[in-house]
Amino acid sequence: MSIVWMNGKVSADPVALDAGDRGLTLGDGLFETICVAGGVVLWRDEHFDRLERSARELAIPCARDDLVEAASALAARSSGGLDVLRLTLTRGVTSRGLAATGTRPTLFATLSPIAAPALLRPVALALSPIRRNATAPTSRLKTLSYADNIAAARLAASVSADDALLLNGEGHVASTTIANIFLVKGDELVTPSLDQAILPGIMRSVVLALAGQAGFRPIERPVEIAELQDADAVFITNSLRLMSPVASLDGSPVGQRALHPLVERLCESFQSQCGRDPRLI
Amino acid sequence: MSIVWMNGKVSADPVALDAGDRGLTLGDGLFETICVAGGVVLWRDEHFDRLERSARELAIPCARDDLVEAASALAARSSGGLDVLRLTLTRGVTSRGLAATGTRPTLFATLSPIAAPALLRPVALALSPIRRNATAPTSRLKTLSYADNIAAARLAASVSADDALLLNGEGHVASTTIANIFLVKGDELVTPSLDQAILPGIMRSVVLALAGQAGFRPIERPVEIAELQDADAVFITNSLRLMSPVASLDGSPVGQRALHPLVERLCESFQSQCGRDPRLI
Repeated sequence: MSIVWMNGKVSADPVALDAGDRGLTLGDGLFETICVAGGVVLWRDEHFDRLERSARELAIPCARDDLVEAASALAARSSGGLDVLRLTLTRGVTSRGLAATGTRPTLFATLSPIAAPALLRPVALALSPIRRNATAPTSRLKTLSYADNIAAARLAASVSADDALLLNGEGHVASTTIANIFLVKGDELVTPSLDQAILPGIMRSVVLALAGQAGFRPIERPVEIAELQDADAVFITNSLRLMSPVASLDGSPVGQRALHPLVERLCESFQSQCGRDPRLI
Repeated sequence: MSIVWMNGKVSADPVALDAGDRGLTLGDGLFETICVAGGVVLWRDEHFDRLERSARELAIPCARDDLVEAASALAARSSGGLDVLRLTLTRGVTSRGLAATGTRPTLFATLSPIAAPALLRPVALALSPIRRNATAPTSRLKTLSYADNIAAARLAASVSADDALLLNGEGHVASTTIANIFLVKGDELVTPSLDQAILPGIMRSVVLALAGQAGFRPIERPVEIAELQDADAVFITNSLRLMSPVASLDGSPVGQRALHPLVERLCESFQSQCGRDPRLI
């Protein structure tokens, strides 16, 4: 059961929106999905920074104080296990016309309990015919306009895969519908660079920053699909899954080298914030 | 002031949605924007057919009876001038995961008075750096995920253009953010074909169907941007603008041949449904 923060109040009520709210009518807004463990909002500032930066790019007013208040009010009501905190910011109501801007954005947040993080749970990927568009803001920003990712995820599910692997318009590897992707080859830890039509994932940044301590050289560059097939290991990252190894791509197994040193560093970082090891939750 | 239909009731209230409604959280849904004149819902069945077809593709349940009821209930409350009827269908609430489907979609509709149709009001277009993605369902379906169109419209407005001209991934002409595009050259009436990353516009179909009666040969095929610059006339179509001539592209005037025979046929079609000539509203 989710609880909702809106306009300074926490409740289990539906969200009452003007029928013209552009988050609802046009996917005109942004969101963040954040892991909460033991009532602690993990990598909180990184998520808030990304939301603020994206809102500035879309010219949607975003008040940091409100983000802090929403997150604090909801996290304080955590049952103490794992929860997902979602912040949703929309442009609110504007005059007619796609280009119109508004002055009163809509912000609401939800807290929902989740099971143990999907850390280390292997995933099967299926290559998607839907590509990510490097010219499109939706490929770089976590907007409410997720319909293409949804279509890709549904196609992947229809062939019993856990997620879709999306290429960009140039045919290079981009990401999955909900996660960034990495490959390991020798001591190299490689992930598509930010110009490859990907979201700048929070967990992606965390893993890149921890790579050195784990004995890897972090490298951001265009990635070919053949490199995934030849890698020692492939994994995906996001804020709820943390790191999940890729077991197969279109049914063919990919390299399964263990990632212990990196997993250790990531679990330490998690634990340093909330006092808990995500492997033991 | 808009009025809202939801769950069989008409009111001016906000829309109360579950905070997990995927229309609101992920742009996971569809809409139609329909012109209402004198209380008559114009090209109603064509809009309903498109919504049903798109919903089937996205596996969102869509009940025709509900569409009819919403449209009738709102149109009956028209002030008798021009209104815009908007139908919004979302996937509703589902279990977690992008690929999840639901059984209870959300449908709501609004009726809002508008000024005279923008018929024949010329528009200035600016070429957008954002391209339409032929591999993406959002380029073919009128989904709630409009963030890329919004970004393109905002860029166009920033250079004082009325709308953006979007190319597809191959660099061919696709559409604007809210309208299909046509060019006239001699007796040819040319518009990008449905494989060019465009929405299958209702007014686009109407104009193509009327072309013959107006002395034109309708042609659907890939279109180069140079063809717009060399055309006798260029115009855009949508359900609220009907037909609007393009005055300029990136500040350069384009051909201004008058389109009288086509405009006459379109106005007759409009008038045959509601008894009014859109030029006289």
